[in-house]
Amino acid sequence: MIQPPLEIDLNADLGEGYGAYSFGEDDSLLEIVSSANIACGFHAGDPHIMRRTVERCVALGVAVGAHPGLPDRMGFGRREMAVTPEEAADWITYQVGALQAFVHSEGGRLQHVKPHGALYHMAAGDAELASAIVRAVTTVDKRLILFGPPGSRLHREAERQGAPFAAEGFADRAYMPDGRLASRGTPNAMIEASEQAAAQALSIVKEGRVRTVSGEFCELRVRTICVHGDSSKAAGRAKQLASALRSAGIMIRAPQVGDKPCS
Amino acid sequence: MIQPPLEIDLNADLGEGYGAYSFGEDDSLLEIVSSANIACGFHAGDPHIMRRTVERCVALGVAVGAHPGLPDRMGFGRREMAVTPEEAADWITYQVGALQAFVHSEGGRLQHVKPHGALYHMAAGDAELASAIVRAVTTVDKRLILFGPPGSRLHREAERQGAPFAAEGFADRAYMPDGRLASRGTPNAMIEASEQAAAQALSIVKEGRVRTVSGEFCELRVRTICVHGDSSKAAGRAKQLASALRSAGIMIRAPQVGDKPCS
Amino acid sequence: MIQPPLEIDLNADLGEGYGAYSFGEDDSLLEIVSSANIACGFHAGDPHIMRRTVERCVALGVAVGAHPGLPDRMGFGRREMAVTPEEAADWITYQVGALQAFVHSEGGRLQHVKPHGALYHMAAGDAELASAIVRAVTTVDKRLILFGPPGSRLHREAERQGAPFAAEGFADRAYMPDGRLASRGTPNAMIEASEQAAAQALSIVKEGRVRTVSGEFCELRVRTICVHGDSSKAAGRAKQLASALRSAGIMIRAPQVGDKPCS
Amino acid sequence: MIQPPLEIDLNADLGEGYGAYSFGEDDSLLEIVSSANIACGFHAGDPHIMRRTVERCVALGVAVGAHPGLPDRMGFGRREMAVTPEEAADWITYQVGALQAFVHSEGGRLQHVKPHGALYHMAAGDAELASAIVRAVTTVDKRLILFGPPGSRLHREAERQGAPFAAEGFADRAYMPDGRLASRGTPNAMIEASEQAAAQALSIVKEGRVRTVSGEFCELRVRTICVHGDSSKAAGRAKQLASALRSAGIMIRAPQVGDKPCS
Repeated sequence: MIQPPLEIDLNADLGEGYGAYSFGEDDSLLEIVSSANIACGFHAGDPHIMRRTVERCVALGVAVGAHPGLPDRMGFGRREMAVTPEEAADWITYQVGALQAFVHSEGGRLQHVKPHGALYHMAAGDAELASAIVRAVTTVDKRLILFGPPGSRLHREAERQGAPFAAEGFADRAYMPDGRLASRGTPNAMIEASEQAAAQALSIVKEGRVRTVSGEFCELRVRTICVHGDSSKAAGRAKQLASALRSAGIMIRAPQVGDKPCS
Repeated sequence: MIQPPLEIDLNADLGEGYGAYSFGEDDSLLEIVSSANIACGFHAGDPHIMRRTVERCVALGVAVGAHPGLPDRMGFGRREMAVTPEEAADWITYQVGALQAFVHSEGGRLQHVKPHGALYHMAAGDAELASAIVRAVTTVDKRLILFGPPGSRLHREAERQGAPFAAEGFADRAYMPDGRLASRGTPNAMIEASEQAAAQALSIVKEGRVRTVSGEFCELRVRTICVHGDSSKAAGRAKQLASALRSAGIMIRAPQVGDKPCS
Repeated sequence: MIQPPLEIDLNADLGEGYGAYSFGEDDSLLEIVSSANIACGFHAGDPHIMRRTVERCVALGVAVGAHPGLPDRMGFGRREMAVTPEEAADWITYQVGALQAFVHSEGGRLQHVKPHGALYHMAAGDAELASAIVRAVTTVDKRLILFGPPGSRLHREAERQGAPFAAEGFADRAYMPDGRLASRGTPNAMIEASEQAAAQALSIVKEGRVRTVSGEFCELRVRTICVHGDSSKAAGRAKQLASALRSAGIMIRAPQVGDKPCS
Repeated sequence: MIQPPLEIDLNADLGEGYGAYSFGEDDSLLEIVSSANIACGFHAGDPHIMRRTVERCVALGVAVGAHPGLPDRMGFGRREMAVTPEEAADWITYQVGALQAFVHSEGGRLQHVKPHGALYHMAAGDAELASAIVRAVTTVDKRLILFGPPGSRLHREAERQGAPFAAEGFADRAYMPDGRLASRGTPNAMIEASEQAAAQALSIVKEGRVRTVSGEFCELRVRTICVHGDSSKAAGRAKQLASALRSAGIMIRAPQVGDKPCS
């Protein structure tokens, strides 16, 4: 019996400049990724950058997603703040709508929504917040796929509400035995060596598991892997990862509604 | 032969608060107007206020429009600034999209777009800017009706591009012999007496003309009249205007695509 | 032996508008208070409002203080957020300096600094944050008096660093047996009746103690009492409180460097 | 008779990053310039960057100046906007005060104020605006030196009000026969060749004149020359310019109050 080729999505954060400020290696990443998380003007991005980034994604066939963040441009949306679920929901509706208008005006379709930075982490651990976010996203368009950590509150709320969800993994971050990411402060939390990152990605995609910091394996079923391009070094590593995946016969392809969440 | 009743739209600026700040007499205006121009977060408004204002409009059957402004909250969008047509277009796409998401999530449909403040005035007099704005709006949704001054560049560009347009008049502002508004600095530029404002509105709606500051009449064909609610006094005048129109057998009704621009 | 008359400072938050938005009953409060906490443009206020508010304080002999807040205008600085002590210190230096320039240009002298909203609460409970804030303030000008809750981390850090400190109490908030404020959610946390608020203020000023929610007294030695003017009702209560204090022979006077912190 | 050595100030815009965004080659410029124009948080810069940039200037003996701009971070303060003289004055007071607090807390003294971007150009041509800006600056501290174009409205207003003024020239911009800068759109408006820029600077400093685009000379007496560091190429050119000046026996030194405006 013939197995279909394995497939995985590679996603990256794009359009994170602001006005005269540029940020990240968008050009390099656009050659690699199948999904783009585009900043929506709260933590980064502005209308002009959104327009241009959407244009390029549509031209290159990269699936467009919204990357809504906290209203904190000085902190790049990385600072946790006390928000009610209603506030977060309204901030997401606003940002998703703004990006969607650019996507529609370029003749494309918005594919996914990935909460950014502190909002991503807050939504992963807070059921009420996660629930409000899922509802906000599905109310705008119920085919929008949420990106988030497997097994998180956001994952469970998406399942509970019947919303499409793509579990996300990382090739360049170390995992704890319980399947969570080692926090950035920890030694060896970041995987700097390209070969090691590629090996982790292959293990995740082909075996559905990851070797954790304890040396033991933990199950990790994801549909998308996040790559980084905040420096030319990081973008270089992302390129090598994409090559390694393709060499192993793995297709790099954006998730579609109807895909199993953890393929 | 029976004539159909005359009809006119009454529009007002709503949702102009921000965070802890409230602004204007939204409650009173919502009982009167057929169209609401809702601030979209650049010059005024925020996601929570947008959500709540859209909810109320949808519940009351008031047609929802976007009121995009310049990115200048401290200046309330009233300060002219040097912008390229592309910048203005992207700012409008962003804001219209953001509001549209709230409208869709409440099960409504966005009806119109009225540029706010300095942007309204700049678009009235600058053909290139007007052209970019019309294109931005129609690219998001070609059924969106643009509100603007009759005979302005925005009006002509809307006609040229085949975009729905509703010419707008004022009951409480004095007109110059050439059909433009007397500028706010001029003596008697504002019509404070309710009866005089009502008389001007009736003249506009029934006769398609307005008595100008010179005493002579000028043709003025509009589909919508703007009322103000920045103070309780202004809101009271708006209420009296609505009564005067209804007493004269005039229906207060939002414009629809397919209406003649100047009914 | 003749006792000097008892004295207390009444402070209020002023200049909390923004652009076209007004906020609070500044006119009424300026007739009552001896100290003004002026918003500095992060959570509220803008350069024009700061100028005008400082002008009026200087003209009326009201002592001017800075009221620096978190950079969150949409949330009015009331949302807690994750900040490092260094960030908070720099935000305070920036805001205090900005206000100080207006005070100097009006020929006055900046008297005190009171952290606003969430920053006030965060500084009260976090020693590291409190330490950085005290250092930031004293480095700008070591005669600046910090306002904060008695016994808080901010109080202790001010004492440790030898910075002037004025302990602050409330007439219209209920106290817990441990001397802390009952949180706003609790029933009867707010004291709405003017007579009761006046009684509490008199007990604080004359006896150095307050009757807590348990019915027992708790020691409470403060040099300043905060009054509110966010509504005309609140401003009315503040006026009655000022009358009650004066009728009891208590002088309303801003703290000076050299006053005992809790006189 | 022994002539004192010729001297000139080299100034550059520093601290123009924001939050996670960096901008310009501050490290390279700090080795070259005698005066730093530090962004104050309106068009660029934030409290943390201001603190750090001031620290480095004080450590290196670079004179610190404020570089206040229009409140338009998305447009980097480069967009002209309609402002009243009072608004501009209050914006400048606010920003100068904020920077001054960092300078004082580092034990330094604020030396000069140079309006940024569109504000610089607006102040050069508008007497009322220039007058309000000079008044705002001198009211904060009358020893502050204003930087601006020679012969501009800002220059004349500074002289009229008796405020210290340092006329500014450019090594890498072409001049028109009337002594104004050729506007950026014009061919050859920018002088890209290092030798040509150095020659222009030497002509300005040693002969008090500049060869204009027409080939003829025009008098140009300045006390400071602006260099750019928005790219590594620009910063390299600035370094070569500094070397050329030193090789010609010219001292690079910040202006002091009491210097003749155009030495």
